[in-house]
Amino acid sequence: MPTILGQNQYGKAENRVVKITRDGATHHIKDLNVSVALSGDMDEVHYSGSNANVLPTDTTKNTVYAFAKEYGIESAEQFGIHLARHFVTSQEPIHRARIRIEEYAWERIESSDANSKFIGADEVKHSFVRKGQETRLTQITYDGEKWEVISGLKDLVVMNSTNSEFWGYVKDKYTTLQEAYDRILATQVSGRWRFNWTDDEQKMPNWEKSYEQTKKHMLQAFAETYSLSLQQTLYQMGARIINNRSEIDEVRFSLPNKHHFLVDLEPFGLKNDNEVYFAADRPYGLIEATILRDGCEAKIPMDLTNL
Amino acid sequence: MPTILGQNQYGKAENRVVKITRDGATHHIKDLNVSVALSGDMDEVHYSGSNANVLPTDTTKNTVYAFAKEYGIESAEQFGIHLARHFVTSQEPIHRARIRIEEYAWERIESSDANSKFIGADEVKHSFVRKGQETRLTQITYDGEKWEVISGLKDLVVMNSTNSEFWGYVKDKYTTLQEAYDRILATQVSGRWRFNWTDDEQKMPNWEKSYEQTKKHMLQAFAETYSLSLQQTLYQMGARIINNRSEIDEVRFSLPNKHHFLVDLEPFGLKNDNEVYFAADRPYGLIEATILRDGCEAKIPMDLTNL
Amino acid sequence: MPTILGQNQYGKAENRVVKITRDGATHHIKDLNVSVALSGDMDEVHYSGSNANVLPTDTTKNTVYAFAKEYGIESAEQFGIHLARHFVTSQEPIHRARIRIEEYAWERIESSDANSKFIGADEVKHSFVRKGQETRLTQITYDGEKWEVISGLKDLVVMNSTNSEFWGYVKDKYTTLQEAYDRILATQVSGRWRFNWTDDEQKMPNWEKSYEQTKKHMLQAFAETYSLSLQQTLYQMGARIINNRSEIDEVRFSLPNKHHFLVDLEPFGLKNDNEVYFAADRPYGLIEATILRDGCEAKIPMDLTNL
Amino acid sequence: MPTILGQNQYGKAENRVVKITRDGATHHIKDLNVSVALSGDMDEVHYSGSNANVLPTDTTKNTVYAFAKEYGIESAEQFGIHLARHFVTSQEPIHRARIRIEEYAWERIESSDANSKFIGADEVKHSFVRKGQETRLTQITYDGEKWEVISGLKDLVVMNSTNSEFWGYVKDKYTTLQEAYDRILATQVSGRWRFNWTDDEQKMPNWEKSYEQTKKHMLQAFAETYSLSLQQTLYQMGARIINNRSEIDEVRFSLPNKHHFLVDLEPFGLKNDNEVYFAADRPYGLIEATILRDGCEAKIPMDLTNL
Repeated sequence: MPTILGQNQYGKAENRVVKITRDGATHHIKDLNVSVALSGDMDEVHYSGSNANVLPTDTTKNTVYAFAKEYGIESAEQFGIHLARHFVTSQEPIHRARIRIEEYAWERIESSDANSKFIGADEVKHSFVRKGQETRLTQITYDGEKWEVISGLKDLVVMNSTNSEFWGYVKDKYTTLQEAYDRILATQVSGRWRFNWTDDEQKMPNWEKSYEQTKKHMLQAFAETYSLSLQQTLYQMGARIINNRSEIDEVRFSLPNKHHFLVDLEPFGLKNDNEVYFAADRPYGLIEATILRDGCEAKIPMDLTNL
Repeated sequence: MPTILGQNQYGKAENRVVKITRDGATHHIKDLNVSVALSGDMDEVHYSGSNANVLPTDTTKNTVYAFAKEYGIESAEQFGIHLARHFVTSQEPIHRARIRIEEYAWERIESSDANSKFIGADEVKHSFVRKGQETRLTQITYDGEKWEVISGLKDLVVMNSTNSEFWGYVKDKYTTLQEAYDRILATQVSGRWRFNWTDDEQKMPNWEKSYEQTKKHMLQAFAETYSLSLQQTLYQMGARIINNRSEIDEVRFSLPNKHHFLVDLEPFGLKNDNEVYFAADRPYGLIEATILRDGCEAKIPMDLTNL
Repeated sequence: MPTILGQNQYGKAENRVVKITRDGATHHIKDLNVSVALSGDMDEVHYSGSNANVLPTDTTKNTVYAFAKEYGIESAEQFGIHLARHFVTSQEPIHRARIRIEEYAWERIESSDANSKFIGADEVKHSFVRKGQETRLTQITYDGEKWEVISGLKDLVVMNSTNSEFWGYVKDKYTTLQEAYDRILATQVSGRWRFNWTDDEQKMPNWEKSYEQTKKHMLQAFAETYSLSLQQTLYQMGARIINNRSEIDEVRFSLPNKHHFLVDLEPFGLKNDNEVYFAADRPYGLIEATILRDGCEAKIPMDLTNL
Repeated sequence: MPTILGQNQYGKAENRVVKITRDGATHHIKDLNVSVALSGDMDEVHYSGSNANVLPTDTTKNTVYAFAKEYGIESAEQFGIHLARHFVTSQEPIHRARIRIEEYAWERIESSDANSKFIGADEVKHSFVRKGQETRLTQITYDGEKWEVISGLKDLVVMNSTNSEFWGYVKDKYTTLQEAYDRILATQVSGRWRFNWTDDEQKMPNWEKSYEQTKKHMLQAFAETYSLSLQQTLYQMGARIINNRSEIDEVRFSLPNKHHFLVDLEPFGLKNDNEVYFAADRPYGLIEATILRDGCEAKIPMDLTNL
């Protein structure tokens, strides 16, 4: 046979699981999209179609729902760890499991004063509105010995309406861009960060607190950096995370420069004093980089942040 | 000629305008997507291609940006009113203008304590994160005499994790559904409400406050209704708005029933006590209705809420 | 009660049904997305939550699948007619049914010569690739007496790379557009056409042939019209349909002007002789109109083509 | 500084360029979406914001449009090679260029007989309809010495309505799936293939013919494989390409198993003899694998096919 099989994986993708936890009349919600990818002794299913080593993708789906009951969903990361461990340790042919999870945040709907008296304040703690801002992400990989946890987020849109410049760049024969000394800087953050927790012997991070703090530091670095380039802002966002969160060794961002072009109002006898902008769709600058804790090795794939 | 021209309109759609207002170091942002549709004496451009009555769509785009400077953007509704009035009153062949606007909300990024001391708290009031929840909508129509203002929202996802039942329905030979006495009720709200302001002589509503209050009443009605059907919840949402907001005479909702199916865990020896749900995509129930102030005429088109 | 219920409808939306018909080893495929909307005596379910008149949306879903077996899917229109008739005639509280259908076209994968010898040409007539061009649409409405059938399509992208001009338009103080004497004209067609078949006593059109011919005439009119405005092209597309298809009385189009801007290459010492274009996303001109057979009444809603 | 910069790249993404070539009255069209990513001596722009080594992303955009004029667009691959070579050889700080291109196919609109006589058949060769099936892809990477060309496609939806089974798999405590001996097999192909052309000294492949033949072999292998698992079909698709196209050494597929579930019609007294299916959205099986020419090294990143 002149062809051979290379890297391969399979599983059920995008299992939408919602877990409601009832604490008396107060309900809590976890809303996840879970994708399972398994690898191992899978040559025969590719070469001959024998499924003798294949746990069906349908079974991996069932496992997601069963584990939501058996273990609850403390955090996306912890849930993914339960799943990855199960597949690798319970199935001899499976040597590696990768669990990807998207999490959607919800917040409570506040009750009206008039009605809360009638219904009783305690009784309306089961109503939620989807927050709708960023999507939280995690990817758990386990090979039976070591863990790799890469968390992050996507679709977080941020803007500084000033404190951004762009000048002093290379000019070649195709350069027509005018230098800018006060521009809008806006981007839609896609970011991933890798934890240095890799072993069951280590103390596990507090995944919920880590996410909340990492997002906060990232946003503050974006807001507080006086920017001469989006690359500089990106680097500050990553460095701020690594300097403040000891559990994280590596950060990668993919930041589209969502251009806001100052509209030329002079033909209409008007002066546009950094007031009116056209928000463009395509094309957009795309700035991507990894920031590492000094001495650490880069492991987040270049293409992961684009997913 | 055996064919004739019927209703027609034209204009530039989806003009993305961002307006920054500087109040010292504190910036304010309005982020709109504006679509213009004009009607009038337009037979010839269809029959012969003569553009003698046609104000170019490119000009309608320019007008959007120029007006953002000339009038500012106090609210989406007020901005649409300026535009609609302009097209109808300045161009003889144009008899009717319809302005549709989407608005995206932003909130401020809070500064870190450490850095705010260094930078000065006042200097970081130009950083924003897109709220990302619902999209606010308005549609302004003007024919030179009367105004019609229909505002609303889309993509607001809400859920009650209990206090919803569904039983006592018709059963025919194709009915297999089991009755439910405690189910999740979730929907993605698409709603529109029509104002009774139609004339320049009337006092204009406070558009910003009206939107905020209407959304609040709608959410509270959703949360506080013990639901025997999504139709009942929908009606309560509309009635609550009309009973609380005297400026609104008509409400229409298009509410997909975003099914959350209780997963059968019995094959795995587990009991699912209203805890673990599968969030389905398609198909979905779709419940649509108009709620009117008694004595008022319905004018919101059936298909508008689907847009 | 100061509020009352207006127009309302409900049903299961987006039922994805695929029907395989086996003609020996040759398979045929119909791939539909069917949405049901029912109206009638539905006050109580809104006012009190009583479901006594409500056939569950789940049942309407079941009916779609059962009818695919019972009646087959001869055409989207015929299938919708079976469904609409059933709901109105079998359920006393239901007075009106509207069935919306999207249809996705497939074409056969041709077998390789070498393999067809081995497998036998007849045995590989079950392989398909989705055509992926336009989505075919129909909407069937039945009130127990009269039928309304509105068919159409969406997402058909067409372009003329010449034979389009735009000049002689109105110029106001916000006009900056340069006149064009040779431009690209491109649009993404959303069209609907209404049949004059309204009664079971009339001879029913051949729905499959009608669609194929209507699309052909529309495309040819687009290609063959020397265009002075997109409005003129739109009118020709509609008139060509009405003049050639006696079963159709009304056509409505929503045509975004997908701008292709000639790129200014002069800064690089290059002449752009109508060769290199930037295909823009937003904003876009949006041209919408109805074309009627003379003497007929317009019934296609303005907002339908936007859906 | 406790943090350091890792892999980074930047450029303008999604430049939509349309090139019209006029061969007398017959026009030809190339429609591309081009993304540029450049790497090199870029530490300072990240650390200090100095743009001294930064060719603006705006310039990379201009270069795309200028090159469409200067070189034409013979094929997406050839166009990407011109661009990558230019950036690496003309800018000292740039050491590596990666060009990603999406290509949209168009086909001609046939003229009507009646009109072609009037207009003249030759004069209506400028009208096109977008084919709308798959999107063709390529990625060109150049470091000044070696080339890497990975082409492919996405969004090609295929289906076999029989000749697919799935049984003999592992059963654990979470397995409920029934074995299937005649099922629909459908997928939406995302595929990439790597060429063994890496050096300017080698004879360059015929990119257009290679794409057409590769797609044909892939489709035929899908159609002609009697499938015991989607993994087996995937492997056959890759092996068929490598065995027939000597210019390709590696193929990677990401194939979602687009489940078509046989609808249970027994509650309605109907037998579903592999006729009526529910086409599900989520979750879906996801099967991914690399197929290599024996002796070759795998280089297509695991995550690339998901993009």
